[in-house]
Amino acid sequence: MGDRGGSFTLGQIAQALGAVLEGDARRVITGVAPLDAAGPDQISFLTTRKYLRLARSSRAGALLVPADVTELPGPLLKTSSLQTALIALLRLFYPEAPLSPGVHSSALVAPDSRIHPEAFVGAFAVIEPRAVVGARARIFPLTYVGEGAEIGEGSTLYPRVVVREGVRIGRRVIVHSGAVLGADGFGFAFDGSRHQKIPQVGGVVIEDDVEIGANTTIDRATLGDTVVRRGTKIDNLVQIGHNVEIGEHSIIAAQAGVSGSSRLGRGVVLGGQAGIGDHVTIGDGAMLGAQSGVTQDVPAGEKLFGTWGRPMMQARRIWLAEAQLPDLVRTLRAVERRLERLEARLGIAPAGEGQGDDA
Amino acid sequence: MGDRGGSFTLGQIAQALGAVLEGDARRVITGVAPLDAAGPDQISFLTTRKYLRLARSSRAGALLVPADVTELPGPLLKTSSLQTALIALLRLFYPEAPLSPGVHSSALVAPDSRIHPEAFVGAFAVIEPRAVVGARARIFPLTYVGEGAEIGEGSTLYPRVVVREGVRIGRRVIVHSGAVLGADGFGFAFDGSRHQKIPQVGGVVIEDDVEIGANTTIDRATLGDTVVRRGTKIDNLVQIGHNVEIGEHSIIAAQAGVSGSSRLGRGVVLGGQAGIGDHVTIGDGAMLGAQSGVTQDVPAGEKLFGTWGRPMMQARRIWLAEAQLPDLVRTLRAVERRLERLEARLGIAPAGEGQGDDA
Amino acid sequence: MGDRGGSFTLGQIAQALGAVLEGDARRVITGVAPLDAAGPDQISFLTTRKYLRLARSSRAGALLVPADVTELPGPLLKTSSLQTALIALLRLFYPEAPLSPGVHSSALVAPDSRIHPEAFVGAFAVIEPRAVVGARARIFPLTYVGEGAEIGEGSTLYPRVVVREGVRIGRRVIVHSGAVLGADGFGFAFDGSRHQKIPQVGGVVIEDDVEIGANTTIDRATLGDTVVRRGTKIDNLVQIGHNVEIGEHSIIAAQAGVSGSSRLGRGVVLGGQAGIGDHVTIGDGAMLGAQSGVTQDVPAGEKLFGTWGRPMMQARRIWLAEAQLPDLVRTLRAVERRLERLEARLGIAPAGEGQGDDA
Repeated sequence: MGDRGGSFTLGQIAQALGAVLEGDARRVITGVAPLDAAGPDQISFLTTRKYLRLARSSRAGALLVPADVTELPGPLLKTSSLQTALIALLRLFYPEAPLSPGVHSSALVAPDSRIHPEAFVGAFAVIEPRAVVGARARIFPLTYVGEGAEIGEGSTLYPRVVVREGVRIGRRVIVHSGAVLGADGFGFAFDGSRHQKIPQVGGVVIEDDVEIGANTTIDRATLGDTVVRRGTKIDNLVQIGHNVEIGEHSIIAAQAGVSGSSRLGRGVVLGGQAGIGDHVTIGDGAMLGAQSGVTQDVPAGEKLFGTWGRPMMQARRIWLAEAQLPDLVRTLRAVERRLERLEARLGIAPAGEGQGDDA
Repeated sequence: MGDRGGSFTLGQIAQALGAVLEGDARRVITGVAPLDAAGPDQISFLTTRKYLRLARSSRAGALLVPADVTELPGPLLKTSSLQTALIALLRLFYPEAPLSPGVHSSALVAPDSRIHPEAFVGAFAVIEPRAVVGARARIFPLTYVGEGAEIGEGSTLYPRVVVREGVRIGRRVIVHSGAVLGADGFGFAFDGSRHQKIPQVGGVVIEDDVEIGANTTIDRATLGDTVVRRGTKIDNLVQIGHNVEIGEHSIIAAQAGVSGSSRLGRGVVLGGQAGIGDHVTIGDGAMLGAQSGVTQDVPAGEKLFGTWGRPMMQARRIWLAEAQLPDLVRTLRAVERRLERLEARLGIAPAGEGQGDDA
Repeated sequence: MGDRGGSFTLGQIAQALGAVLEGDARRVITGVAPLDAAGPDQISFLTTRKYLRLARSSRAGALLVPADVTELPGPLLKTSSLQTALIALLRLFYPEAPLSPGVHSSALVAPDSRIHPEAFVGAFAVIEPRAVVGARARIFPLTYVGEGAEIGEGSTLYPRVVVREGVRIGRRVIVHSGAVLGADGFGFAFDGSRHQKIPQVGGVVIEDDVEIGANTTIDRATLGDTVVRRGTKIDNLVQIGHNVEIGEHSIIAAQAGVSGSSRLGRGVVLGGQAGIGDHVTIGDGAMLGAQSGVTQDVPAGEKLFGTWGRPMMQARRIWLAEAQLPDLVRTLRAVERRLERLEARLGIAPAGEGQGDDA
């Protein structure tokens, strides 16, 4: 997390954030904290009006708030873009550790790999032949970069990542510890007595600005490439099968899984533990709720929920109706008995015949 | 597993376990085995009366049994606390490998880290600057301990664990291989065109006597700490999101996931593959069944099941009623036809009007 | 992936595959590609007649097709066993990298381990005392092989696998990066105030020709062994609990989980994210759909789906009927009102009495 000892005046902070200060510019702030934990030397922030009451009772020395908030006393930093200002605030107090370029003496770097002189390679990292590591890339300790793999400029592989042979990673990509990129896809042909392995000879392409969570696995393609497009963010323990393509700026929450050859559009959102069957196409901007599953194509913009995913509102209505289902069964039996009594009174033949009328 | 070659007399075993022996104290036992696999040189155990029949036919040379079991022939070791005695029995025959303190010559230990002289640090382990490793802690090979991280007395990090910078681990904690503690939380702000990363500058605190399974991931907080309290046991492949707090003595089964900022009370039990949404509070002693999901707060002591978790008994009744659902649809249609016939006979206006009466 | 620069004539390819060539045997092919991506120098393949139209419009220089396909122009390679021929084709153009036997100078190999002279041990690998590595086995960099563990002939441990002490791995087994074999099973005994750890002193046995996916975890047994039998294929991020036994030639898809002491038969198929409770027996050839769960025994050959798994067809029918459930509730209420009206007209006592008739 780098240094946490920074302290700044409210004037300096306002300037760094491009925010308008209402308060004493010389007041010194030594850290950032949530509303309920911040003390008089710390700055806090209001991300939603829902927390206005909490903000009012906060002991924070200053508050970063949306420009239209007026109900609060004390020093305020007002901004028209709270999230962006908050990011700048966190980066101000918690700057990223400066890059120390160079290859650690214990790292094993193949002579015919190409490591940019401004790149960092940590202890016990392994860089195999013909791999390429770009400028300002950081390969943390105990990470493996396979033969011919490419790590783009400014990308970070945290400790103990595996990038298998031939995998191509773009610029400013972040890969968290334990992730495995380019293991074999799960492909077998049953020959009547055993599962024969289908060689998985394709690759993996991770485009710029993607983030990949801890212990996530992205398999190499059988042929061609498994692709994660620009700006997509993938959480921890996610499984991406072989030949999958995930569109730009999508969000894949933890423990979700995408089976082989499925294609997700741009801006798709998968909730935690969601699952996509194989050869499924998910349209742009579609959202799947947590724990939902789909085995059929999903149109753009659709919001689905549940196993064999349904539209969210329908899923909710069914869930509510289900609570009445056991009573429903009983009520329906009572209704049938009442009908029989009425039919008997009117001398109408029993139900079987009535059904027969339609057949 | 240490040495498995130990052999003990029944007298020695009784003494070690604080059990009462009924049988020949000089009989020699060379190992422990389940009821159906044990031979005459081995001791077995009866954890529940359900297995009495199996115990009767066992070839085991002796049996460890609850004090009130009388129906069995042959040498018995009787105890009022079977589980505790069984643990002692296993530890007797399978003692933990003795600790060999010291830092392996291939480990990379930063000069300004503090490794207790009674700690063990294995081959190719990396201990970054200002990290602290307590007495009798064991850092197995290929494990990474980040800058300023703390590993408490008697804790074990198995091979290939990642503890990122600043993470604090208490005493007697066990972390299994592949676990990642302190990767970034999954936090982004969409600015209309791309997901901006929200710096994750908080930490992770693991209290005393916690166990963390293989390939489990526990993310660092955005601000503040992600906390796992004393005595909680977490299985493999579990995801714990940023700013989550898990109370004391809880049990989290494999592949469960807890989303950001949720708080679990004391003694909570999550079944395998269960999922908790973000910002959810789970009361003390609540239990969630396997594969269940909740996005709303759960009161203390509640037992829930299913996606959008329901009380266990209700979930079970709905599940049983669902089996009749397809028939229900057909029956209800038949009922409507019968009603129409009755209404026609009596000259009553059709259903539409009847419904209108209530509107 | 080895060399991709190979080029072969159609005659050579036909011979290597045992296929019948219809076309010019001297035509040169430089690679393999899917139907829609292949160019005139590449060969493609038709795995199912579903893609006949795509095959007709393909620009591929030749097509590998089933023997009974006649509708296609251009050079054809005909085979009676397409999958096997396809595997041979991929292996021809993408041969596995040749094994380079020997122990890397940076690997840490215990003096009393036994590494076959034809085995490969990569950089920063750790082989603990008394471990055995067979002929032509490949231990990739950063992998850990614990004390007394055995790796059979021709097996591959990709970078950063953990094989804990005493685990036995058969021949031609493939273990992908990040997998952890032999971590402690999840076993605790609650003593009223805390969870006491039950020592996990058993082992793990992986039989011949098994494949284990990236970041998958297979726990050691409490006593005895956790067993994965011959020819079974396990995908990524799968959890196999302690004392589980999985029969021969089974398929376990990604993110599935099997709880402690469950036994799966031969040829069982678990879909992605499926979950099996503890102490459950699954019969030979049973199939569980994706995201399904079972806590009861499953007979051989059964196909189940959904949480508390149901037969696949029943699950589907319920799912379809559920869509009508909210309407059903409303319809049933309307039916009750109509009944009341009829009963009133006929001077029949209200429903309560009718139900009483049965009681």
